[in-house]
Parts: sequence; C-alpha cells; structure tokens
Amino acid sequence: MNLADFSEHFVVRLPHTDAAGVIFYAKIFEIEEELFERWLELGGFSVGAMLDRRLAPTPIVHCSADFRKPVRVGDRLTTRLAGIDIGRSGYTLAWVFLINGELAMSAKVKRVAIDPEAGEAVDLPEQFRAWLEETQSRTGRLS
Amino acid sequence: MNLADFSEHFVVRLPHTDAAGVIFYAKIFEIEEELFERWLELGGFSVGAMLDRRLAPTPIVHCSADFRKPVRVGDRLTTRLAGIDIGRSGYTLAWVFLINGELAMSAKVKRVAIDPEAGEAVDLPEQFRAWLEETQSRTGRLS
Amino acid sequence: MNLADFSEHFVVRLPHTDAAGVIFYAKIFEIEEELFERWLELGGFSVGAMLDRRLAPTPIVHCSADFRKPVRVGDRLTTRLAGIDIGRSGYTLAWVFLINGELAMSAKVKRVAIDPEAGEAVDLPEQFRAWLEETQSRTGRLS
Amino acid sequence: MNLADFSEHFVVRLPHTDAAGVIFYAKIFEIEEELFERWLELGGFSVGAMLDRRLAPTPIVHCSADFRKPVRVGDRLTTRLAGIDIGRSGYTLAWVFLINGELAMSAKVKRVAIDPEAGEAVDLPEQFRAWLEETQSRTGRLS
Repeated sequence: MNLADFSEHFVVRLPHTDAAGVIFYAKIFEIEEELFERWLELGGFSVGAMLDRRLAPTPIVHCSADFRKPVRVGDRLTTRLAGIDIGRSGYTLAWVFLINGELAMSAKVKRVAIDPEAGEAVDLPEQFRAWLEETQSRTGRLS
Repeated sequence: MNLADFSEHFVVRLPHTDAAGVIFYAKIFEIEEELFERWLELGGFSVGAMLDRRLAPTPIVHCSADFRKPVRVGDRLTTRLAGIDIGRSGYTLAWVFLINGELAMSAKVKRVAIDPEAGEAVDLPEQFRAWLEETQSRTGRLS
Repeated sequence: MNLADFSEHFVVRLPHTDAAGVIFYAKIFEIEEELFERWLELGGFSVGAMLDRRLAPTPIVHCSADFRKPVRVGDRLTTRLAGIDIGRSGYTLAWVFLINGELAMSAKVKRVAIDPEAGEAVDLPEQFRAWLEETQSRTGRLS
Repeated sequence: MNLADFSEHFVVRLPHTDAAGVIFYAKIFEIEEELFERWLELGGFSVGAMLDRRLAPTPIVHCSADFRKPVRVGDRLTTRLAGIDIGRSGYTLAWVFLINGELAMSAKVKRVAIDPEAGEAVDLPEQFRAWLEETQSRTGRLS
C-alpha cells in the first residue's frame, strides 16, 4: 500500500464474480477488509492485536457501497482511501475503486472501538487516534 | 419464505463468521441475495430469467447495512422484508434480521433494471412492477 | 434434513457462482459445512458446543471434491450423505449432490477430534462416536 | 509471482477465517484460484480469454486439500507450485502453503480443457500445453 495516499492495485479474480459476469456486490467489502488491514499495518496496528486484546477491537456498525460501472474478471482496480471521519469511539473510512482512472465503485465503512467484555463503545485508543489523524491529514475528511 | 410478510428463518453457520467470533460483515449481503432470490421466486420471477434475458436484469447500484448486536454461529435469525421503495427503473428492499425478537442487523439494497446490451437503465417491466407493488402493499414503504 | 438418509434440498444462488456461469468450485465446501452442521444438530451436537469446548472440536484435515456436471443458478440440488468412515480420532463424511436424480458433484471431508489446548488428536468422544455409528448404520461405509 | 518457482507471498485476512479462529477450509481454494490466475498470466494467458472463448476454458473436475497446521489472521504464507501433471485434456497443479518454512496446507486442483458448446473434453491447446511443459520443467511432476 502506498504510504502517501493509501492507494493499492488489485486484480479482480473469478471468486469475486458471479454468473452475471460482474463482481458480486458483497465482495467489495471483502476487498475493503483487505485494504483496511493493510492500512492498519502501515500504522503499526493489526487485526491480530485486536483479537488478542492488545488493542481495542473495532467491529463494524455501518457499511455502504455504490456501484457505478460493471467490474469484470481481470479488471485492474486502483483503490484509494478517499477520506476519513473521526469521532470519539468511531471512525469511518471511505474507499474508491477506479478502472482506468474512472470511478467504478466506492465503499464506506464505520467501525467503533469497544470493550469486548462489556460490549460497549470506548474512546479510541490514543495511539490509534494519532494514526487516524495522520491518515486524515493526507486524505481529508469525508465530504 | 412466508408469503404474508416475506419472513424466513435462517441459522448462522461457520462460513458466515470470522476469527472475531461473529458474522463477517459482508456476509449479510450474501444472505440478502438468498432472501432476494426467494422473494423473486414467490412472485414467479428468478435470477435465471434475468441471466437468460427473459426478464430485464436488475444489478445492484447501492447497498448499506447496520449492525446492532453480535451475531454468532448457531444463532437463529428471523428475517423479514421491512419495506420497499419503487422508482421508475429502480427499487430498494429493506430487510431486518432479528434474534429472539430483537433487531440484530438490517440491510438495504437498491437494484435498477437495465438493458444489458446498452448498459442503460430502463423502466421496470410491467409484470415485475406489479409484484413490487403487491409486495409494498404488504410491507409498506421505506421510512 | 431428512433423518432417514440425511438428505436435503438446496437451491443454487448467485453468490455460489462465478463469471463462468457455474458454481465456483470452493463453494461446494461451504454447502458441505451447512450440511455438516445440520447433521450435527440432528444428533444433538453443534459447532457452538465445539467452540465453547463442551465438545471436542473436530477441525478438517483433508477434503476433496469431484465435479461431473455444470451446476447453475436456480438448480435444485438434492444432497445426501453417501457414506461415513470412522477411525479412533477421525471421521470422514461423503456427500453427493444430485440434479434431477443424476450425480452432479460429490465431496468428502475428514475431520479429527483434537484437544484444542495441546493441539493434538484425541479419541472421539463416546456420545459423538455413538452418533457416528448410528449414522453409519443408515448410510454405510465409504467404498 | 516469482517466475522461477511460481512462489508468492500472501497474508491471511479476517474474511479467510471463521469463528474457530483459523482459516475456513474452503478458502484455500479461493487462494488457489488467485494463484492459478497469476500463474496463467505469467504464461500470457488469462481467465478472461477463457470466458471470451479465445482460449478453451478449463473447468475444475477434481480438487483436494490437506491441512497440517492452524493458519490464523495475519499469518504470512509462502505459497509455491510444488508440481504439475499433464494429460491429454487435463492438468493438475499442486500448491504448498508454508508458514516460516513449515508446511501448513497443500492443495491439488485438476482442470480439464473443454469445448464449451459441446461440454466435452478437448485436447489441451498447443500453446497452453507448451506453457504447462515449461512449468513442469521448473517444478517437476507430482509425486
């Protein structure tokens, strides 16, 4: 993942598609999770640390996606973090997926830091918030 | 699928979950597609007919979901079509997923009828619109 | 699931397929897991009990599948447990998937009971072995 | 993908896993498909060409996998093509998946060239056979 703008290249494979010949819509979120985990690791964090409770886990509370153009097997997507919103417990990452420079799809995912024992929202851990703010300084807020 | 309110029962299985011990968020849309196809078939339609071009295909242009409670392996979900919006070319189905009567998750998916050759939106086929309206008469509009 | 022969009916949906218009091969094992969990529950067991350590978990050590005929969206599969092998720690379930009475696909999956702390194979729990033997009395051994 | 031994690096992500905390077994074949498509492209072929009928498609007729060690989120797998068998119409690729140099999983997948209209096996296209043989000269036969 490119550290300057969190962009990445990604080739669409057969398991992403369905019999209509295009990407099956749920798959955008599997790709999002891959991008999310790479972005976490760029900041020195990981899903593994969340599962081991070394870092507050941040389960998903909301997601959405828009589909503009058909995406097919072999298409080379350029993905980029388009913006980020930061709250007290929650944060939202917005990703765009381009083919030949044109917007094909986009996805927005909101995650919230929780105390896994209590199941309640907690403040974002300080170091993690610093990474969110550094990210925002490069990508901007969500419009 | 119950014809009166489009409800269904559904058990969460291991492939729906991830290492955090709960449903992986993208999986809500695989379940939605299953429910969508059962609802289509109740009305005498099918995805097969869309793929064979006997019926205008209606690819997804937008989807969203909310996650309220952790959903785990073995959980018995009651799903129900909570409302529907009908436009000229597009329609949106909203589904709720309950555990023991409490809302655990919800999903909203907008599909748009297209001419697959031209790749452009077309009016919803008349018979299909009739089924959408009959559905709406039982479930109500989206709030 | 039919208690006499562990048969089940199953409709192929869009997320099972890929752009070649047929089932994506890995999906046979997602369906197998669904069938396995229904078979477990018929015997009074569950994956949940394995995850909670009330029952020795039985992770998969080997799987295989054969694909004889194209399987498409909307195809109504009849699935049936075709046979079972029982060892000291391990057991293998063989499933067949028929369309209109003809064999379309088959899958074989070997699971082994382990002590999750030690990560080592253990003898199959007695009650679970009884269910395996009852199953074998109805389906026969693997040929 | 490394051209000399068809090796690749791959990080396990949350959607590959299930609530047991390890890779869900069917996912090995989604990874295999990714590796297969990269290997195809190294040889100048693609799944897209198969779907467009510029190259005989080679659907899967058999697959198998072995699981030796638990594979978890964040694990860095080294994958490598371990051997290949070539028949008249069919070919089998065998892949190994290592963690820190130790074998964690392996998969074998047999594909067969078909005439998609007739649904019957055909001889492997000559240029494609040349690529299979070049591959075999670097990886060896299946033992």
